[in-house]
Amino acid sequence: MSRAPPDVVFIGKKPLMAYATAVMMHFNSGSSQCTVKARGQSISHAVDVVEVVRNRFFQGKLVIKEVKIGTEMLGEGDEQRNVSTIEIVLVKTD
Amino acid sequence: MSRAPPDVVFIGKKPLMAYATAVMMHFNSGSSQCTVKARGQSISHAVDVVEVVRNRFFQGKLVIKEVKIGTEMLGEGDEQRNVSTIEIVLVKTD
Repeated sequence: MSRAPPDVVFIGKKPLMAYATAVMMHFNSGSSQCTVKARGQSISHAVDVVEVVRNRFFQGKLVIKEVKIGTEMLGEGDEQRNVSTIEIVLVKTD
Repeated sequence: MSRAPPDVVFIGKKPLMAYATAVMMHFNSGSSQCTVKARGQSISHAVDVVEVVRNRFFQGKLVIKEVKIGTEMLGEGDEQRNVSTIEIVLVKTD
């Protein structure tokens, strides 16, 4: 059987703990990797989520494997605009 | 003579172009590396600055060498709180 794809948690406007719990659940269900993604103003929120999970829940057992930033086009025609993105790949080490 | 330390641009509440210009000036003054730093809500703004500089001013000649995220303690006593941080290291490739 092939390995399951790495799980993704997409960060939006919910309270920080909603996402922190979602990330923790992924790891507790046996995954060793989780990717946290966000766009625009939620990027700061995504970093907060990752830092809370790392410092409060996993105390050093969660490593940031990679942080990627980029740009996406949103909307069409006159409404089209660029929005920044972030992807933070987390790996459990124990 | 020792090499000058890598320059740092700290992102705050000013308009995006103020910081984008500052980053561009560093590279135009001969530096090959520039670090963009931000805390809290300004993290999203920092990613926007980097993406605008990369896509609009340097079109692919600027590489993201490293993105680090972390936590800093701000304030003292009862006022003490954690704030997330980001550091984006940019390198000119040409």
